[in-house]
Amino acid sequence: MEESFAVKDFIEKKTPRRAVIIGGGYIGLEMADALVQLGLEVTLLEFASEVLTTLDPDFGRLIHAELAARGVTVKTGAEVQEIALNQTDLCVRTASGLTVTADMVLVAAGARPTTELARTAGICLGAGNAVQVERTMATNVADIWAAGDGVQTWHRILKRYVYMPLGTTAHKQGRVAGENMLGGMREFQGSLGTQVVKVFGLVAARTGLREKEAAAAGFDPFTISLTTWDHKVYYPGAEELHLMITGDHNSGRLLGAQIVGRYKTEVSKRIDILAAALFHGMRVEDLSDLDLAYTPPLSSPWDPVQMVAMQWCVAVKNRRA
Amino acid sequence: MEESFAVKDFIEKKTPRRAVIIGGGYIGLEMADALVQLGLEVTLLEFASEVLTTLDPDFGRLIHAELAARGVTVKTGAEVQEIALNQTDLCVRTASGLTVTADMVLVAAGARPTTELARTAGICLGAGNAVQVERTMATNVADIWAAGDGVQTWHRILKRYVYMPLGTTAHKQGRVAGENMLGGMREFQGSLGTQVVKVFGLVAARTGLREKEAAAAGFDPFTISLTTWDHKVYYPGAEELHLMITGDHNSGRLLGAQIVGRYKTEVSKRIDILAAALFHGMRVEDLSDLDLAYTPPLSSPWDPVQMVAMQWCVAVKNRRA
Repeated sequence: MEESFAVKDFIEKKTPRRAVIIGGGYIGLEMADALVQLGLEVTLLEFASEVLTTLDPDFGRLIHAELAARGVTVKTGAEVQEIALNQTDLCVRTASGLTVTADMVLVAAGARPTTELARTAGICLGAGNAVQVERTMATNVADIWAAGDGVQTWHRILKRYVYMPLGTTAHKQGRVAGENMLGGMREFQGSLGTQVVKVFGLVAARTGLREKEAAAAGFDPFTISLTTWDHKVYYPGAEELHLMITGDHNSGRLLGAQIVGRYKTEVSKRIDILAAALFHGMRVEDLSDLDLAYTPPLSSPWDPVQMVAMQWCVAVKNRRA
Repeated sequence: MEESFAVKDFIEKKTPRRAVIIGGGYIGLEMADALVQLGLEVTLLEFASEVLTTLDPDFGRLIHAELAARGVTVKTGAEVQEIALNQTDLCVRTASGLTVTADMVLVAAGARPTTELARTAGICLGAGNAVQVERTMATNVADIWAAGDGVQTWHRILKRYVYMPLGTTAHKQGRVAGENMLGGMREFQGSLGTQVVKVFGLVAARTGLREKEAAAAGFDPFTISLTTWDHKVYYPGAEELHLMITGDHNSGRLLGAQIVGRYKTEVSKRIDILAAALFHGMRVEDLSDLDLAYTPPLSSPWDPVQMVAMQWCVAVKNRRA
């Protein structure tokens, strides 16, 4: 919060014209959106080959195009080596020799847990060097519970602890810790890594595992994508939705999904249908059995999340044949 | 479809000025919306004490207010007794003595299955005098399957057949019937009665059982409602969502839910989160464990569907205390 207020204060007092943002993840993208709306020229530098690495690069590209359409200069594969002060200008230099001059630089290149207090108290660290907790949110030290961005998180599909700080998870963990501190017996039911971000006029959401993550975890993942309409195209205002679904080829189990679409096309609560399915370990094929809401201005008799699931089943059958 | 084209044709050729719609259900409300947009003066006559009887009257009232705000004259408790032709005027008279004069009258007072062909073929009728089918969509006559608005529907919560013609259900049943006709062994997994309608600027959705329906089915239902914001109020454009949740007091099991909110506040896919939970027989309390998507422009760290679930749990505890 302090850093956010400091940024706002700096912009109001110093009226910078050019900003460089290092990092094309959630924070970097949201800041690009905000700074463009405040009238700044924004350059976004991303180390990876595409922005928003929490999504598949094919979907990251859609966000990249939206940034470009709104006037953000995006440089991918940009490894920042130096931020130098040249008179009143900040010069950001990358390994490939690119130099960008700016009046302000924001670094949004990931999060690390602050654990000094915990370590001082004899609390062990776990995944990602975050505070080690059980699913009860108990630490190894009696009478000390921990929750939030500084602790490891039980992953419901991977069935192991990961470091994945998210606001929704922090709230759930805090509630479990609080109840158990008062004598409760609750366990955190695990994260699916469900996330969503709005970038200008687009919304990008995901839940579960991406193909690469699923393969690394020992699954036999198979992924397909589908572009379709958010609602019946004969009703005005239909917009394209881009959906991607990953399932286990052997068991047919749903492993993860991604959706990118325009703001106000129910992208984020559509990913939640898939999150609810993942929570229950559903198979991709069985998504067609869900009784989902339909009216022409808002969906189709098979919701797009069911259409992509059906396409997945057809593709798996063809692959086996 | 033919009737829909006939209505359109009549409006274009005869340019009626005043319309009466008999029935304040899905079709009646959608027609009121469409006719107002075409510039007609619309009077809606509903037999029940509130429009949209598929929702609780408290939520039906919100739709009623939206209709009134858009210029529709709504008369509830209106039992139509006669439609008379007076020169070129149509006079609609109700039991209470109300007379409404119009240039066109639409009757949208429910659906009845057309079963003559089935009866002629020796096929038995079941719930609501619709075609009797198994969950395989087989009729009692060998080699004849049936699906759609003319057949009875397996209700997943009631665990019995009902007559509830819906487009989503028809699609699911058709797929099951088709697969089984080709030698498959699939069973229709049941309807939850998930429905949504857009009426001018509002969207109203439901899934599962209402309190009255649940009580009639032998559950011990308890219902609460909550009005909250669709997303974080500090982010521009937050709108009120009205949520209602019904659970079984004894088992804690989720039985049904209703949501009313402005168009474009993800009402319909929010009801789908609850539909997915209902499909799996979740308890209301366990909705808090779902890992749902959050970003300030689109939700809160606890989605409104989780907020109303938490309120339900608190209310049940207070009621027991």
